[in-house]
Amino acid sequence: MPDDRSAADGGRIGQVAVIFAAWRTRADAAGYAAAAAAMDALAAQQPGYRGVDAARGDDGFGITVSYWADEASAVAWRAHPDHAAVREAGRGRWYDGYDLHVTQVTRSYAWRRAQGEAEA
Amino acid sequence: MPDDRSAADGGRIGQVAVIFAAWRTRADAAGYAAAAAAMDALAAQQPGYRGVDAARGDDGFGITVSYWADEASAVAWRAHPDHAAVREAGRGRWYDGYDLHVTQVTRSYAWRRAQGEAEA
Repeated sequence: MPDDRSAADGGRIGQVAVIFAAWRTRADAAGYAAAAAAMDALAAQQPGYRGVDAARGDDGFGITVSYWADEASAVAWRAHPDHAAVREAGRGRWYDGYDLHVTQVTRSYAWRRAQGEAEA
Repeated sequence: MPDDRSAADGGRIGQVAVIFAAWRTRADAAGYAAAAAAMDALAAQQPGYRGVDAARGDDGFGITVSYWADEASAVAWRAHPDHAAVREAGRGRWYDGYDLHVTQVTRSYAWRRAQGEAEA
């Protein structure tokens, strides 16, 4: 469990959380992994980037939540040319479908075994 | 890929999305699975419930997003006695830590291989 999450999550109120829920195809696992790693690295360099959480199960369904300082930075990342190119590739090869929800964080809680719960 | 997601997701604007990101311990997998299934079933019976997405990887990190008609129904689910009891058990046994972000959906997109993208 990364230690830096705890500090970051106290401050998520007002952030934009982009929920990306996607069904992977079985195709091109290596190409997908490489593109996903490249996108993670590129996203982290964007202005307003505030972190990411991601989980994918064996059934191919995964959820990625990226956090942004505000709507403008989330929209700018959506419009980034490299991101758009990968999105096209994703539609062609890697995904059977996805949902994307842009949200605004109104409340945040974090709990760690060592620390107890703190409401932000 | 469930067919009913597509219809549901067009209508997520204005819904409350509760993002629960948690690190599982290795303890009591059977007890956790049973409790998770029971909570999924109970949540689905609550007023204002609008669906759930969940994914967990082999590393024990998982994300569950539950969707609610409004803040009041999300808060009511949080306060449900059975849910509160399971939350206590989760802290004691099943989780090393978690983040919970209550959000409001401002935009929604869905794409399916057969259908193309639709902005809601």
